[in-house]
Amino acid sequence: MSTAAAPDPTATASHWDALWLNVRLMPLTAADPAATVCDGALAVRDGRIAWLGPRAALPADAAAKRVHDGGGGWLLPGFIDCHTHVVHAGQRSEEFELRLQGESYEAIARRGGGILSTVRTTRAASEDALFAQSLPRVRNLLREGVTTLEVKSGYGLEPHSEARMLRVARRLGRELPLRVRTTFLGAHAVPPEFAGRADDYITLLCDDMLPALAADNLVDAVDAFCEHIAFSTAQVQRLFEAAQRLHLPVKLHAGQLSDLGGAELVARFGGLSADHLEEISDAGIDALRRADCVAVLLPGAVHFLQVKERPPVAELRAAGVPMALASDCNPGTSPMPSVLAALNLGCLLLGLTPVEALAGATRHAAAALGLAHETGSLEPGKAADFALWDVERPAQLCATLGFNACRQVVFGGELRPLQA
Amino acid sequence: MSTAAAPDPTATASHWDALWLNVRLMPLTAADPAATVCDGALAVRDGRIAWLGPRAALPADAAAKRVHDGGGGWLLPGFIDCHTHVVHAGQRSEEFELRLQGESYEAIARRGGGILSTVRTTRAASEDALFAQSLPRVRNLLREGVTTLEVKSGYGLEPHSEARMLRVARRLGRELPLRVRTTFLGAHAVPPEFAGRADDYITLLCDDMLPALAADNLVDAVDAFCEHIAFSTAQVQRLFEAAQRLHLPVKLHAGQLSDLGGAELVARFGGLSADHLEEISDAGIDALRRADCVAVLLPGAVHFLQVKERPPVAELRAAGVPMALASDCNPGTSPMPSVLAALNLGCLLLGLTPVEALAGATRHAAAALGLAHETGSLEPGKAADFALWDVERPAQLCATLGFNACRQVVFGGELRPLQA
Ligand SMILES: [Zn+2]
Ligand SMILES: [Zn+2]
Repeated sequence: MSTAAAPDPTATASHWDALWLNVRLMPLTAADPAATVCDGALAVRDGRIAWLGPRAALPADAAAKRVHDGGGGWLLPGFIDCHTHVVHAGQRSEEFELRLQGESYEAIARRGGGILSTVRTTRAASEDALFAQSLPRVRNLLREGVTTLEVKSGYGLEPHSEARMLRVARRLGRELPLRVRTTFLGAHAVPPEFAGRADDYITLLCDDMLPALAADNLVDAVDAFCEHIAFSTAQVQRLFEAAQRLHLPVKLHAGQLSDLGGAELVARFGGLSADHLEEISDAGIDALRRADCVAVLLPGAVHFLQVKERPPVAELRAAGVPMALASDCNPGTSPMPSVLAALNLGCLLLGLTPVEALAGATRHAAAALGLAHETGSLEPGKAADFALWDVERPAQLCATLGFNACRQVVFGGELRPLQA
Repeated sequence: MSTAAAPDPTATASHWDALWLNVRLMPLTAADPAATVCDGALAVRDGRIAWLGPRAALPADAAAKRVHDGGGGWLLPGFIDCHTHVVHAGQRSEEFELRLQGESYEAIARRGGGILSTVRTTRAASEDALFAQSLPRVRNLLREGVTTLEVKSGYGLEPHSEARMLRVARRLGRELPLRVRTTFLGAHAVPPEFAGRADDYITLLCDDMLPALAADNLVDAVDAFCEHIAFSTAQVQRLFEAAQRLHLPVKLHAGQLSDLGGAELVARFGGLSADHLEEISDAGIDALRRADCVAVLLPGAVHFLQVKERPPVAELRAAGVPMALASDCNPGTSPMPSVLAALNLGCLLLGLTPVEALAGATRHAAAALGLAHETGSLEPGKAADFALWDVERPAQLCATLGFNACRQVVFGGELRPLQA
């Protein structure tokens, strides 16, 4: 931290907690996502953004307790990873090798690999082991400027293990300088105990697991995997109705491998987001548009599964459906605890522009978590969550792979150690 | 560093400098690339590997000055990034955006973008600026366990700037715990001063630049870009003859965009490697095989340019051509200072197996630099260059993207700080 010349910030009684000078700003607001400020300043008070704009427009009585010199770096909203399975035990590189030999993800899953493989290792892990194994992945995201992280359950598939996953997620939010949102994904796969009895499992979720976990304040949203190898739309609908009774928002893994009408379903429930969407009909796109439901794009899975099908970005763009971008960090189809990699793959594999990718990992990701008014852009009143980047242009964050140019992260107005 | 139980390493006069215990070993030797040792040990003396094998087979009189507990991690040879343009100034994310809009790399290059864009920024940069801009990229590679790095010139294209690039490369090798090999790539593009006079430029390279740089000990090998938008085989041949007169080994950018017979040419000169090879004929593959010339695969460029053509890995494998893997780190077609990303892309985009990818970034990469007897595998007598990884299986290094599980790097027998 060093002090830079400013309209004498110490001359008057300080009314800001901190002021960043000598920064370039990309606020990523809805009004003008591509707008930038060349020689900018940003002020923080009580953990929130108090002011931002060109340095030349700083109020004459501008004063702050601490002044930070941004060294000409780019200041962007903190990244929001709005779709992750980052809490899990074990790894599945054996499946990576099987897929390289030509086996399909569906074939591996039907044999008890895939999700059920991670269910076995996650059920067997203690809460501390689960936390310890998840921590390096979350720290990697923190070093990349992530300030809000969604964490799904779904590798327990029974009450104790699902609760353990969600408690670990909450603990990550308590022990790290990070906002965590939990999603109950008990309907991730049919557990072996319920093989052939998916309807009974859904009943258990609706009547017992979800209400109990919600009562323990472990659930911020409810998700499901709507797919031939997982749950039907009728089953998902029952789960969504249970969520509705508990006043919990819903989201859905829809159209990753096949289009069962998941987008329409989640839109009908006023859901936060429909995620994946490699397979979606025009009617599905229209349903998302009318419901203002976010399309969460997950290029990691497209890359790791090397699928030919891509989410219809041009159509979603034309329809005005908000598109978020997330890591989908999971041990099988996206072992990629990296928003930066998602930015690069989102542009190269899905055809997002860098501005769309950056807005997708910030503002639209916030909306996909119901946090649109709290974070996701640099605007007065929003949480002071942002990151400072050593790049010449924001597009460089998307145009690079395997390199992290993050210099500084601020969460709730507080500087976060990069080795957090 | 902690001490682990061993056959009492302090009981006798120490004859090893250091001993690693509680490690799993993947030596990646030519004899058995996939071989592993579960509970292994590795000893170092005078900067070289003195012994390795199962811990149970440690000599009865085993003794070392320092004993390291590897915590059950995997010990692999240090990575060798055998094809990089990591020394350069500026960035080219504007071209990334143009390509997303459908412009081809060749069209951008013919308009004065591409390589010539970086030539302008690199010529304008002082030696210190060039070093400072390259350092974060090289440090990223160091953190990933890279112990040997090739650095090409080729963004100067005139005597002073080419010399400056190569001096920066040498300085990186002096100031960082890293082995650097320099490659003179004056024939990277026709400089604007010689537009339409490529033959005259080749004459300048052969008669003046190369001999002068070689006399200053700045050149370990000679490379060229054999391509319609760069130099013909006849021009490259003249350069190779000049290299031969100076007893310098050659290598070649061959078949990236079109097959001009570059593989056959570099094989005829007994070259170290033919690099790229998206376009190569059966005759080219056969020439590489007979010359024992390494095929250096660069999946970063395949990814960033999203080219349909892939190097014919199955055919190269069948022919027994050694395949190396490198980052190709450059500001345009592979802004990816990451061997880990290259491992992942090499498997997913090119169809390498994880063992092939790992051998490609170690043993075969060493051969591509003429260092096969010095480094690239864990064998007694070779340099003690290795890295310790927090993974359950080596394949995990390939199966992950955007995450670095490196815990410890040893270069020449010395522990390297991870923040080097
Ligand atoms: Zn998912
Ligand atoms: Zn190259």
